[in-house]
Formats: sequence, structure tokens, C-alpha cells
Amino acid sequence: MPQKELGGAGLRGQSAGTTSLCTVGKTGTGLTYRGYDITDLANHAQFEEVAHLLLVGHLPNQQELDQYKTKLIALRGLPQALKTALELIPADAHPMDVMRTGCSMLGNLEQEQDFSQQLAATERMLATFPAIICYWYRFSHHGVRIDTDDQSEDSIGGYFLKMLTGKTPSELHKQVMHCSLILYAEHEFNASTFAARVCASTLSDIHSCATAAIGTLRGPLHGGANEAAMAMIKDWRTPEEAEQRILEMLKNKEKIMGFGHAIYRESDPRNALIKQWSQALSFGAQDDHLYAVSERVEAVMKREKDLFCNADFFHASAYHFMDIPTPLFTPIFVMSRLTGWAAHVFEQRENNRIIRPSADYQGPEHQAWLPIEQR
Amino acid sequence: MPQKELGGAGLRGQSAGTTSLCTVGKTGTGLTYRGYDITDLANHAQFEEVAHLLLVGHLPNQQELDQYKTKLIALRGLPQALKTALELIPADAHPMDVMRTGCSMLGNLEQEQDFSQQLAATERMLATFPAIICYWYRFSHHGVRIDTDDQSEDSIGGYFLKMLTGKTPSELHKQVMHCSLILYAEHEFNASTFAARVCASTLSDIHSCATAAIGTLRGPLHGGANEAAMAMIKDWRTPEEAEQRILEMLKNKEKIMGFGHAIYRESDPRNALIKQWSQALSFGAQDDHLYAVSERVEAVMKREKDLFCNADFFHASAYHFMDIPTPLFTPIFVMSRLTGWAAHVFEQRENNRIIRPSADYQGPEHQAWLPIEQR
Repeated sequence: MPQKELGGAGLRGQSAGTTSLCTVGKTGTGLTYRGYDITDLANHAQFEEVAHLLLVGHLPNQQELDQYKTKLIALRGLPQALKTALELIPADAHPMDVMRTGCSMLGNLEQEQDFSQQLAATERMLATFPAIICYWYRFSHHGVRIDTDDQSEDSIGGYFLKMLTGKTPSELHKQVMHCSLILYAEHEFNASTFAARVCASTLSDIHSCATAAIGTLRGPLHGGANEAAMAMIKDWRTPEEAEQRILEMLKNKEKIMGFGHAIYRESDPRNALIKQWSQALSFGAQDDHLYAVSERVEAVMKREKDLFCNADFFHASAYHFMDIPTPLFTPIFVMSRLTGWAAHVFEQRENNRIIRPSADYQGPEHQAWLPIEQR
Repeated sequence: MPQKELGGAGLRGQSAGTTSLCTVGKTGTGLTYRGYDITDLANHAQFEEVAHLLLVGHLPNQQELDQYKTKLIALRGLPQALKTALELIPADAHPMDVMRTGCSMLGNLEQEQDFSQQLAATERMLATFPAIICYWYRFSHHGVRIDTDDQSEDSIGGYFLKMLTGKTPSELHKQVMHCSLILYAEHEFNASTFAARVCASTLSDIHSCATAAIGTLRGPLHGGANEAAMAMIKDWRTPEEAEQRILEMLKNKEKIMGFGHAIYRESDPRNALIKQWSQALSFGAQDDHLYAVSERVEAVMKREKDLFCNADFFHASAYHFMDIPTPLFTPIFVMSRLTGWAAHVFEQRENNRIIRPSADYQGPEHQAWLPIEQR
């Protein structure tokens, strides 16, 4: 078969299918979910509204939202076999490996038997993912078996914070979680979503798709950026120190995480939205330097390299102000992006053809067989 | 960013990267691994030689092969936590979900800390995958905890048969396993391998890549074809009955599994190789109809639709003659294709750019925000 020319490495700029879910950077800056601007969603909606928009197809009215949240609350409890499996995973495991394994294990215990169950299976994952990571974290780090059936918080973000800390989260923290989960929910054919669609294209089950996506998001070029940003800024005590260190890093051509984007050219619309919450949190957290350090890093990167913050940079300080351990940053991304992954799987199944590209061969030409005794 | 036009759904015929590992259908029929013809490899090599070719880069001499096999034998035993996790999975789980979860769990217990460990981590998976599926299968179905450290068989295929049945496999069965595992080892940018490369392109770890690939192979459009072929032919008692049923299926436009291929146009070079073994096995298995039924199906499909058997069709009868339960057919594919997946991950890491295509948007245009009380 004659091959079409490769547009660019990594399929950059190459259309790999159609979607009705999302536009990224259409005007150089924008992000929409089913036509709704990310700024409207992040400023006015709860995460569960956005999950409903992506998974069911429209923004819910009040009654629909109430019912949706009630349903998700009832789906929270982890099966005993899943809890036992999580207890087998050591404290020094990678939290994304835990998410990947927890999701995969759930697929054994509650298999998606056919595609008519896709929405129910997704809602179950949406309800259980916060508990999967927190059950392992609290057991392996503190020896505590948390009650995953807890219904005291009515939002996914609030439930996550409650499972993580055991304490009732503040209204501010719950609001920030809504915003954060909305910002990370969907982003067109990013690598993890594309992995989910490749998996879905063989007509595999939805837990396989989500598991593939989690493993793909795990990579430092994708989901790990907010963790890397936090690791970078955490020891800088003043804006002046931050400026000096960033200039050194730029001089040494080190990679600065949390800046620039493969698709956006002028700015990432998610940055302003999470940045405002990082600032609000910094007051409550009696922060005397981290927000100022973050702002200085943003200014220096703009001045020196004309690079803008992406969604990840101010997420680092925001999560930190809420006392979320840095290794759990990417699992929060999973709790959110699951909605986008699943919506793309539904879409792929609607109009499927197996995703099977070709490759340019660069290997050896024909090799004559040589019996082992002659090698 | 201006998008390049989509060549075809599923990226068919679209190059998505370069490889030195494999050519598929270059002359309409051929298949080579690093330049070696599949017929030479399947007729003369052991599977461990091919694994060495794909993973290390060259065919081993006798000393290298002996050392390689000795090393893999020593890596067989499953960690206790993995065995305990497998015991938690019910007997009615999907065996590919078990493989996916076992691989993912192994990644928690023995994390690939950096890419210098990629070969060692792959060898560990290669050594343990037969035991992962058999440990679960024998425990959940027969209540038996098998000894995964068993060293009585020196090949991966022989070890699998021993773990599955508890009996010493015949020389014929071990030979067939070498051929089968060689035929399934590598196939360029097929969907599961491409999923592994998408995952690798975020610089994720190798267990994430293998887990993503297993989930992708699980789909009935990919790995499930030999199981589907077996399900189709298993109740047909005579060639005449088979011919009649196939003609009915064709009339009803039902999908006949195990025929045709997305890339090969004239024939699948793997078919003749496994077919000869299916015939040899049929004698030993006192088969009085299944091989004859299979041959008739092949002839009718050629005559009626000019379609050829792919690698999967005669694998169905071959595995059946070795008393392998049908639901374990695709896990054998995993034990083999792991070599191709891992070799592609190594290659992706050597010259990486994140695989992040674009999409054609077909969704709603801009939607004005509507507060929830107005919906």
C-alpha cells in the first residue's frame, strides 16, 4: 500500500479523526467543551455539571444535577477485593501506578459486559477514583483504612479532600476543586485521550481504555508537569531567589515545567482561572512567599522567553496550599480527565474504524538465515 | 494551526513514525523481523532466539541463547503480593483483564525506575506472563496454587503448558508453541503496538506501555480473532456442515473471523506456518473432524469471497488440539507480542516526540452560558 507522507513527528498537526467534544486553541487561545467556553464553565459550574455535559451531552438543569450527584454519591464504596489489592501495594509505589492498577482491578470485579453499560461503568469509575488513590495512600502511609462509603461531601472534589485528610474541607477548597477538575476535564486528542481512542478502536472494554489512558498520562511530558513545577519552586524562599534560579536554568538550557504548550500559541486560557484561586488560597494558607515566587517565575519566563504559563504551573501552588502531597497531583488529573477519556471512547465507538497507522521502515534489508552454529 | 487533511479513518496508510523492527506486506505478502523472513524464523528458530533478535538486536549464537534462556528461567517466580492479587480475581473475569491487571500490579512491585532498566523489566515480564495467567486460571478454576518457580521446562512455551496443565508437555507441543509465539511476536504499527508507542511518547514507564497494549489487544477486532474463530467452528462436526453454515453466514452478511487483513492483500505468510502444525497436531489429538472442518472453511472462503486465512484461523484448531481453553488464546498472544511492544517502546524512547495528533471538530459552535436556573 502506498504510504502518505508523514506530516511531522508525533502526528503533530495531523488530523486523526473527528470529535464533537472540544476545540483547543481555535483562535490561538480558546478552549471549549461542546461549544461552551472554559471560562464560563470554570467560573460558574460545578465539576459534576461539566461531567454531565461531556458524558450525557448537555448541561443539566437543577433537578438533573441533583439526581446526578446523588447517583454518584451512592456509587462511591470500593469492593472489598479492590481494597485488599490496594493494601498489597507498597508505600513507595508510584501513585499513577496505583491508579492504573486500581482501575484495571475494578474492571475485573465489575466488567463492562457490553457497550450499553458504558455510561454506568464510567460513573462508577468517576465515583470511585478519589477513594482508590486515597485508600492506598492512607493505608500505606498511615496504616488507616478509610471509610470509602462516606457521604458527608456531595461533590467529587470535596469527597477527595475528605478521604485524603479525614477532615471536612472548607468551602474555598471545595470551590477550587470544582475549578481544577473542570480545567483538566477535556482537551481534544491529547496523548492520553488518543491512547484511549486507539484502545477503544479495537472494540475493547472501557476499563482497558481508561487504564491505557492513565498509563499514558503518567509520563512526565503529559500529566506530570504540575508535579515537576512544584518540585522546581518548592525550595525557593523569595521572588529574587526564584528569578536568579530561573535565569540560571535558562542559561543551562534546563527544561522549565509548566510553560508553553503544543497547541496554544499565545496563552493557555486555563492559567488565569487557576491562578486567581492560587492567589485566594495563598491568603488562607498564611503563605508568605510561594505565590509571590510563582508570579515572579511567570514574569521572568514572559520577559526572557515570551513563554506563558500553561494549566499546570499555578496548579502546583494551588494544590500545595490545600496540603495535597505533590505525588497525588497527577491522580487528581485522572479523576477529572476520566470524563474526557470516556466521552471520547463513546464517540469512537459510535463511528469506529480500528486505528492502525503505517510506519516508515528504516531497518536492515533482507537478511539470509544463518543456522545458530554458524553465528 | 492549519491541519493536514485526514488520509483515511483509523490513520490507514498514514505513516505515524519510523521503525527498524518489521516490514508487513511490503511485496503484498511478506513479513520480516529486523530483515529476517518470518518463514525462516518460524521454521528454524526457538521463540527465545526471536525475542533476543527483537529486544537485543541480533540473533544469538548458541552461548548467548543458552545464557538468555537460563536468565529467563531464573526470573519466573511471581512475587507473593502479585499472587495474592491474582487470587482476588474471580473465575468469571476476562483473562485479558487478568493479564492487564497482573502486568500493572507487577509495575507497582518492581517499578522501572529509569530507562536503563527497560531491558531487565521486559525480561522479567517475558518470564512471568505465562505464570500470571496460569496462576489465576488454576487457582480460580481448580483451587490449585501452582509453583511458579518451576524450572523443569527451558522454554517459555513449554513453561506455559506445564503451568497450565501441571503435566510435562510433549516435544511436538513445545515445538508448536515456539512457532506460534514467533508468528505473533511483532507486526509493525498494529493497534496494540501503536498504543504502547503513544504511551511511551509521554516518557511513561514500560509497565504502563505494556498494560496499555494488553488492553488494546483485548478488543475483538485485534487479539480476539482466534478465539472467535474457535467459537465459530467448535460445533461443526463435518466439512459438509461447515460449508453449509459458512454459506449461510455469508448470505446473512455475518462477520467470519480469521480471514483477510488490514495490510496483507494476497495472503498472510503466517497462515501456512501454523496450518502445518495444526495438521500435525490433529493426528496426535485423534481429531476426526476439526482440522477437516477448518480446511473446508478455508476453501469455501477462498472460493466464495477470495479471502485468505490470516494468522488467527488455524491457530484456533492448533491451540484446541493442545487442550488450551479458548479464553486463554489471547493471553498467549500477549506472552509473544510483549517482545514487539517492548522493542517498539525502546525505539520510541530513542527518538521521541509526544504523539499528539489533532482532530476535525464537528460539534456545536459557540454556546452562550445559561445559568442553571434558566435551563
